[in-house]
Amino acid sequence: MVKIALVIYRTSLISCLNLLFLCSIVSCDSEHKTTTLKHKSILFTAASLSTVQEQYSSVQLFQQSMDQAIKEVDAQIANGIEVPIPKDLAGGYTHERHKLNYLTMQRAGKLYRVTGEEKYAVYVHDMLREYAEMFPTLDRHPSEKSYSRGKLFWQCLNDANWLVYASQAYDCIYDRLNADEKAFLETNLFRPYANFLSIETPQFFNRIHNHSTWANAGVGMIGLVMNDTVLVKRALYGLEEDGLDTAAKDNDGGSIKEEGQERAGFLAQMDLLFSPDGFYAEGPYYQRYAIYPFMVFAASLQNARPDLKIFEHRDGILSKAVYALLNLTDSNGEFYPINDAQKGMSYYSRELVSAVDIIYHFGDQNPELLSIAEKQGRVLLDVTGFSVAEAISQGKTQAFVPKSMELKDGADGSEGGLAILRMNHTGGDLNAVFKYTAQGMGHGHYDKLSYSLFENGEEVLQDYGVSRFVNIEQKNGGGYLKENKTFAKQTVAHNTVVVNQTTNYGADIDVANKRHSDRFFFDASKKNIQIASAKDTGAYDGVRMQRTIALIADSSFAKPLLVDVFDIDSDEINTYDLPCYYFGQLLLANMVYETRATLAPMGDQFGYQHLWEVAKADKLPNQTKVTWMNNQQFYSWTASTDTSDEFLFGRIGANDPKFNLRADPMFMLRRKADHAVFASVLESHGSYSAVSELSEDAFSKVTGIDVIYQSDDYTAVQIRHEGGTLQLVLCRNDSAADQSHEITIESKKVSWTGAYDYQVM
Amino acid sequence: MVKIALVIYRTSLISCLNLLFLCSIVSCDSEHKTTTLKHKSILFTAASLSTVQEQYSSVQLFQQSMDQAIKEVDAQIANGIEVPIPKDLAGGYTHERHKLNYLTMQRAGKLYRVTGEEKYAVYVHDMLREYAEMFPTLDRHPSEKSYSRGKLFWQCLNDANWLVYASQAYDCIYDRLNADEKAFLETNLFRPYANFLSIETPQFFNRIHNHSTWANAGVGMIGLVMNDTVLVKRALYGLEEDGLDTAAKDNDGGSIKEEGQERAGFLAQMDLLFSPDGFYAEGPYYQRYAIYPFMVFAASLQNARPDLKIFEHRDGILSKAVYALLNLTDSNGEFYPINDAQKGMSYYSRELVSAVDIIYHFGDQNPELLSIAEKQGRVLLDVTGFSVAEAISQGKTQAFVPKSMELKDGADGSEGGLAILRMNHTGGDLNAVFKYTAQGMGHGHYDKLSYSLFENGEEVLQDYGVSRFVNIEQKNGGGYLKENKTFAKQTVAHNTVVVNQTTNYGADIDVANKRHSDRFFFDASKKNIQIASAKDTGAYDGVRMQRTIALIADSSFAKPLLVDVFDIDSDEINTYDLPCYYFGQLLLANMVYETRATLAPMGDQFGYQHLWEVAKADKLPNQTKVTWMNNQQFYSWTASTDTSDEFLFGRIGANDPKFNLRADPMFMLRRKADHAVFASVLESHGSYSAVSELSEDAFSKVTGIDVIYQSDDYTAVQIRHEGGTLQLVLCRNDSAADQSHEITIESKKVSWTGAYDYQVM
Repeated sequence: MVKIALVIYRTSLISCLNLLFLCSIVSCDSEHKTTTLKHKSILFTAASLSTVQEQYSSVQLFQQSMDQAIKEVDAQIANGIEVPIPKDLAGGYTHERHKLNYLTMQRAGKLYRVTGEEKYAVYVHDMLREYAEMFPTLDRHPSEKSYSRGKLFWQCLNDANWLVYASQAYDCIYDRLNADEKAFLETNLFRPYANFLSIETPQFFNRIHNHSTWANAGVGMIGLVMNDTVLVKRALYGLEEDGLDTAAKDNDGGSIKEEGQERAGFLAQMDLLFSPDGFYAEGPYYQRYAIYPFMVFAASLQNARPDLKIFEHRDGILSKAVYALLNLTDSNGEFYPINDAQKGMSYYSRELVSAVDIIYHFGDQNPELLSIAEKQGRVLLDVTGFSVAEAISQGKTQAFVPKSMELKDGADGSEGGLAILRMNHTGGDLNAVFKYTAQGMGHGHYDKLSYSLFENGEEVLQDYGVSRFVNIEQKNGGGYLKENKTFAKQTVAHNTVVVNQTTNYGADIDVANKRHSDRFFFDASKKNIQIASAKDTGAYDGVRMQRTIALIADSSFAKPLLVDVFDIDSDEINTYDLPCYYFGQLLLANMVYETRATLAPMGDQFGYQHLWEVAKADKLPNQTKVTWMNNQQFYSWTASTDTSDEFLFGRIGANDPKFNLRADPMFMLRRKADHAVFASVLESHGSYSAVSELSEDAFSKVTGIDVIYQSDDYTAVQIRHEGGTLQLVLCRNDSAADQSHEITIESKKVSWTGAYDYQVM
Repeated sequence: MVKIALVIYRTSLISCLNLLFLCSIVSCDSEHKTTTLKHKSILFTAASLSTVQEQYSSVQLFQQSMDQAIKEVDAQIANGIEVPIPKDLAGGYTHERHKLNYLTMQRAGKLYRVTGEEKYAVYVHDMLREYAEMFPTLDRHPSEKSYSRGKLFWQCLNDANWLVYASQAYDCIYDRLNADEKAFLETNLFRPYANFLSIETPQFFNRIHNHSTWANAGVGMIGLVMNDTVLVKRALYGLEEDGLDTAAKDNDGGSIKEEGQERAGFLAQMDLLFSPDGFYAEGPYYQRYAIYPFMVFAASLQNARPDLKIFEHRDGILSKAVYALLNLTDSNGEFYPINDAQKGMSYYSRELVSAVDIIYHFGDQNPELLSIAEKQGRVLLDVTGFSVAEAISQGKTQAFVPKSMELKDGADGSEGGLAILRMNHTGGDLNAVFKYTAQGMGHGHYDKLSYSLFENGEEVLQDYGVSRFVNIEQKNGGGYLKENKTFAKQTVAHNTVVVNQTTNYGADIDVANKRHSDRFFFDASKKNIQIASAKDTGAYDGVRMQRTIALIADSSFAKPLLVDVFDIDSDEINTYDLPCYYFGQLLLANMVYETRATLAPMGDQFGYQHLWEVAKADKLPNQTKVTWMNNQQFYSWTASTDTSDEFLFGRIGANDPKFNLRADPMFMLRRKADHAVFASVLESHGSYSAVSELSEDAFSKVTGIDVIYQSDDYTAVQIRHEGGTLQLVLCRNDSAADQSHEITIESKKVSWTGAYDYQVM
């Protein structure tokens, strides 16, 4: 159509009439059948639908996404409709079938809307009718595992997913159905379904939680399609009366209703689940999951209820949430796996395709988003995806550059945060992720002041992530595994200090939910140092902790150094354990250690029961060094240690009767003290090729790290290396950027302004 | 020059004279300086040198390889020459420097020969002079580790490498030196160096071994360059008198001189080290290492002594050796890591670049070799590399298709062999590598009838490979680790049966060297089954073993099945252990097992001391099934078992004080019996995406495998699955292809011709 339009651009009226005649023939015979929008749609406006219908085939990425959807949907149409009686858990047949059904329905609906091909509408209608016939016969799902059992699925969460997708499918065929057909579906399926998810399951609908976001979105979207203002209001503001108990918990130990919680519904989720920086309390893995209902319901509102200006709500919080997510990724686009996160989830997920397309179209049309959409290789089959694909075809793409940043946590930004430090080097990049957030509700881990490190998208020091195999039926039906509580959530499973072999807050979620770490300072403005410092006084009663993580670029080193200064203070003598979860093969450890002839667990609780003690050193040199090799590179960790310190080599996997844990290695520095400073430096260095068998820079260049100054107000460390010395002085009490400081270190005066001083000596 | 030549093709005599004038100017000012060959070169003939000089810049891959060499050599020239007094082991400075020197010299020499650029000749000459000044002052290397200590390096092997490369460098600048200059280098360096490697170190020079191949090549190549017929004869035929002791051993326990060994030298290596199929006794990792001196000395002979027709020797054995190597690779081009092999070595190595180029040029110009050269992305900077690059630029490339094949072992092909079974499927390929070779000398492993499995270039069931970190100084100077002997070489470290927890031949290398397994049959001619069967009666006295490995393609399965029938027979009751080294995470094990609260090693010798016993089942169901997940795929192993069988889950790493071993997982089926058949089937199935979180076909489709017939003459198994039954009948005594057989299985007559019968029931 576009080509024809171009050809006849300067033609006479008669030619135009000819064209109209031509078009009417074309629209009958080609796949470009146009349909007019006859209701308030959640996916298009009348104008945008007509643009997409007319132009899509000339926009490559959109057409490509259509082709993919056509292939998948046609295969399902050929397969025939299957709407089985619900029975299985995640990974099982009925679960996976209903999931495939809603995904297919939504795609089929959009294909109909864009192409006008009848068969897609028929397929959606037929399937919805089968659901409408079955739904009134269903009781709750036979599995009793969930705190909010669903009907099609074992938990309402999946049922809400179904409704979010089915609403879109219904929206696409709505104009094509007669009044009786619509009444049949709405009476038997959609209204009771919406009531089931809300009025009948308030513990699911009225929380401030990603589960409820899905519920709100499903109920609101079907309400918009049916123009049911009651449902839409319920979705936006929650149930007026829910009768929920503040002592109730969900399956993950998360609260159903926090004390003092008054609000519910979609707007409350937008106001309370994100920090002002767009950080979502449960972390990026769940933020990715949660972002889909946020984005798709917001886009639905923007299409059907533009008066609400939803994308402007709370200073554009949805846009901030998407950018936070995009920045919470390593260089492969994979999310940093903090809290309950399955590794490998990335911005290639369908949720992020939606988020990028929607925030591009309804947001600021940032050309950097287009580079991510190009990598994703597909767009939504609606006006948002069309906008993105069209902009790409017009060459507007710019590279997305992830940034070093601090994301504050808490609804008002006062509950600690997360620092992302990034430095590029000639061979790639290093990212340190330093976590000093609040607990993150039911999916949070007890890992105050932990950090993990990534190089070129590979983990150097890992966060274990979740102990779960999502949708793998053999592993507890794809659900959370026991070891998630007994190991993965525990403090010792993370790269942070464990006090007296006890987990933060004694692993009490109620205490955890009320406390948080505190940011101290963050500075990523300089070329040669990026630094973040945070404190915690709540994780262990009577123990004051400050950790500072810095990436330092120095010309003596090919790659940045990671410097870690962990200051711990207590009035009592405690045991401080600092675990370090590396990957690969140990090459060198400079202390005298004894390997165990038989292995026993390191302890009997708080995660220690899952760590085999492989070797132990009872005393250490002043500088402890460990070098290992992974991914054809070398890593060396050098720490300032006391001779009375202990050092343990361990491996995950003890007390794991179902082989649920990964048998990854770790080491741990242990000190008994009241006040301790764990100062260490991690070097990534050199390379190895298994083909040329050449090794380069296999040895650490750091000769030592020393704590050269300690007081209540300051801690200073020096890193000695073959080519010189680096000095880092940290404030402990005053982080004001404009405050001047002066101290004397080894009879030399050091003065600076701000929270820290870094010098190449 | 080419362009000019084309332009003036049809010009008059006057124009031609103009051109000559022009050329003389060009040859002074441009980089295309031509030089004439004035001696018998090992790298070019006069004609080929002139072709390369004139045409190289228009042949892309050659020019590209030149550019790379120029970059590397120019960087070294800028760095300045360093010829340090030898001191370090592999990985240390002096070792790596001398290695870099010979690699750089050779490249610089070739750059001079091709471009005529003086600076490269000067660099080579200066460096050789420094070596000539230092060499007379050197005693043997201070390290006493080697059975044949070198001078520049800790072992003569590396010194021989140096001479192989330095000979080429010297060849390139030979014409440019005056008589005094040549005399200086030859008197102080090359002749004493050649004598040092041969007459002064007969235990290194006169073996039938890859070490000696390097020595022969180095001595022969420098002999050719200097036109020293004594040295060339010594290289070809060995030392007449070596005074070697047949009881002497090298560092790896390999014999210095086998009893009855009469021959030595290069021709003897060609005759005795390869089987008639081109298989090299030590396996592909060492074959790759050994192939370079074979190829480069052969090419040198072909250039300088074409009368010898070296490439025709023994029916073209060198060509067969290269093709054997190229077929001994997975789909990433990495060599199957049998015996002492470091994983990751591949046909991208410089040795294979040489082999491919030389065998293309001096061999049959097989266009499939060009596809490998394209992947390698570089060619040799001589006439062979030019031939390859030119053919590629002419579009002659065809895809190299690795084949299922059997490579017989032993100088006369009578000492067992290695079977490679390959099947493609829509998602990639499966390769089973079944080893029934002779021991493979000092680098052989005690793993009779073992196999390993690869999918899409990733290991499914691994061969542990070597316990060594080549050129990683922290790990024993890059040399073999103690655990190579105590674990990696032991039978239990492989996927094959261990009898009474004892290694093959009681781990006695002298016995091992005298015995071998025997091929029984091999058939890769059919689409739906590829099968190999082999026997061993020597690994354990009084124990007769037959193993049959088959890949079976059946329409009920998306990918081929691997069927393994291991028949073991003895007059006594023995303990038979069948280990299985998988990767990844166990999802399911269908027996009742007990996980250990503390871990102890599985035994105290023959490698068992390195295996932690993680869990054990004391009795088994009739069908034992284990499912695991790796690389986003599922694998299930189903075995016919007796209730009295035991099953162990283990992990490598016990008694490993220096963390030299990889902590990889394994499981093991154990049976006490006189006669046992271990029949099992391995399915690769389904897929998982961490991004979509969808799992497909996560469950095994095999319901069971049964041994349905056993006699002295036949074993039959049936594989039952959801869609039917597959039946495989194997001969045990007669593998003749034309022999008819008939037996009655479950009252049905089964008749067939040949060594086996396969039927879909």
